[in-house]
Amino acid sequence: MNISTILTGDRTTGPLHIGHYAGSLANRLRYQDSHEQFLLLADTQALTDNAHDPQKVQRNVIEVALDYMAVGIDPARSTICLQSHLPALAELSMLYLNFVTVARLERNPTIKDEIRARGFGRDIPAGFLCYPAAQAADITGFKATLVPVGEDQAPLIEQTNEIVRRINATAGQSVLPHAQAIIPKAGRLPGIDGKAKMSKSTGNAIPLSASPDDIRAAVRAMFTDPNHLRVQDPGRIEGNVVFTYLDAFDPDQNELAELKAQYQRGGLGDGKIKARLEAILQELIAPIRARRAQLSKDRGYVLEVIKDGTERAQTRTEATKRDVVSALGLFQL
Amino acid sequence: MNISTILTGDRTTGPLHIGHYAGSLANRLRYQDSHEQFLLLADTQALTDNAHDPQKVQRNVIEVALDYMAVGIDPARSTICLQSHLPALAELSMLYLNFVTVARLERNPTIKDEIRARGFGRDIPAGFLCYPAAQAADITGFKATLVPVGEDQAPLIEQTNEIVRRINATAGQSVLPHAQAIIPKAGRLPGIDGKAKMSKSTGNAIPLSASPDDIRAAVRAMFTDPNHLRVQDPGRIEGNVVFTYLDAFDPDQNELAELKAQYQRGGLGDGKIKARLEAILQELIAPIRARRAQLSKDRGYVLEVIKDGTERAQTRTEATKRDVVSALGLFQL
Repeated sequence: MNISTILTGDRTTGPLHIGHYAGSLANRLRYQDSHEQFLLLADTQALTDNAHDPQKVQRNVIEVALDYMAVGIDPARSTICLQSHLPALAELSMLYLNFVTVARLERNPTIKDEIRARGFGRDIPAGFLCYPAAQAADITGFKATLVPVGEDQAPLIEQTNEIVRRINATAGQSVLPHAQAIIPKAGRLPGIDGKAKMSKSTGNAIPLSASPDDIRAAVRAMFTDPNHLRVQDPGRIEGNVVFTYLDAFDPDQNELAELKAQYQRGGLGDGKIKARLEAILQELIAPIRARRAQLSKDRGYVLEVIKDGTERAQTRTEATKRDVVSALGLFQL
Repeated sequence: MNISTILTGDRTTGPLHIGHYAGSLANRLRYQDSHEQFLLLADTQALTDNAHDPQKVQRNVIEVALDYMAVGIDPARSTICLQSHLPALAELSMLYLNFVTVARLERNPTIKDEIRARGFGRDIPAGFLCYPAAQAADITGFKATLVPVGEDQAPLIEQTNEIVRRINATAGQSVLPHAQAIIPKAGRLPGIDGKAKMSKSTGNAIPLSASPDDIRAAVRAMFTDPNHLRVQDPGRIEGNVVFTYLDAFDPDQNELAELKAQYQRGGLGDGKIKARLEAILQELIAPIRARRAQLSKDRGYVLEVIKDGTERAQTRTEATKRDVVSALGLFQL
């Protein structure tokens, strides 16, 4: 069986939300039968901009693993593993740093944007500037050829392939495969307030563990068309978060198309579309919340899943490291 | 027994020469009874500016280990270990990179000088810029408190201690000890041509494996006082490599003082002082060369020594990593 390997994962900085579900988790559920899939609990990467708060990173390892399993990631079909416990990734990272220049890292558009977004200024932690090399280690450490990423992260895959080319050229053989980005058609889901980024810290996210009341409150507070004051007025669907979410989650996209037309003509109130979205989200999240509650009672089982997956991942990444060391002709004791 | 731990070592980029002997190896021989001493075969660090030639780095692992044992480093009293086989050091390096800013690394005077010396310009490999964090990992990984370095390397120890302070502050406990530089009184030995740096690549070094003919030729070619043309003329001892080497190696420093005075007054020819130096160097190197030749016949034994030392070093550095992970409250499976 020659199936492609996918590497994906999440920084362990907070529980996942429905933006993650729409952007990546739903796809991962599909991939787990058709691909070999590794899900990295990226606690090491999370430290690159959270070194001041290691306990947050630590706490969320279990939370993210719970979210994975709650949405239906099956540890028997996908490997859930913990980045900090894969020393071969650190070793490959350190090696790859020699195959990329500081100037190249500084030119990386994703890094540039993120440095701006975080307000680092000149005080960029070196680990943050270097994380594209660490990400190249993650991807190649698993010999993954497919990497689901948001559009804004595509330059990181280019960076990985540059390092792959240099390693292969120095080794004089094709020891590492090139990686390809899988960019989901649906863009990133905005926050309920309409801001581009949904995040727990700004309180504009609906977590996968949201209670029925949380969901109701979030949908009620959701940004629509501020000029759509009376039901009979025409409304805008562009930038209207309720419709953006319906695009992502409504199982009946034909009916949704009709509703959009009606909303734009006038005669459809925000209350109606919010009720529709709320019902859909309640139905989506209810089983996830239930499984999550169930699983979180058995922390030992969750730990066991992470441990098993991490052992499998250790075997894989150690083998890759040995391949690279051997191809480059480095010393082997 | 509460003795201090020393971490020292060499990049595996070429066999060692008498500059290393005067600058560090002689001290290491003294330390091996009074201190716990780890000697790091720094193949990982060597790659930070030799990534294009990994085989050179690989080849010289055995050469440097041979040099160590040839000068009298006793594997039973000092631990000779291989950096690339200590994954905890890579893991600590990646962690420490989050505790130092890019701006701080760029301000490091040692790094600045070395970037200039290597002509990297803007194309500095990221691994090279980051190596002070890796060196902090080396030092703290062994919980070394004493680090012999040249004067020009002292800023690297300051950098290490900055990282130590940040880790300890974040952990809220003193998990890592501060390190102290041991700066040898004798400065760096110049090349035989009088240039500041003795190095194999420029051909101005006397390797520890030099043959009697090599030694003779090197001393004959040695830079003295270019204006000291006739024996009866006064000569300069400043910048005169023969006297600099005699300062470092002559066992009879009183007689040397008299010779210097005579040379400065006039009446002492270069031939005489060169003959004296040659005899001293022949005597110094002969037993080293003999032991080296003997040892190099038994590559298996040398490998065994490196393997044993590396296993001891693994135990030590893994323990430190666990201490740091635990003190910072990071996830432990």
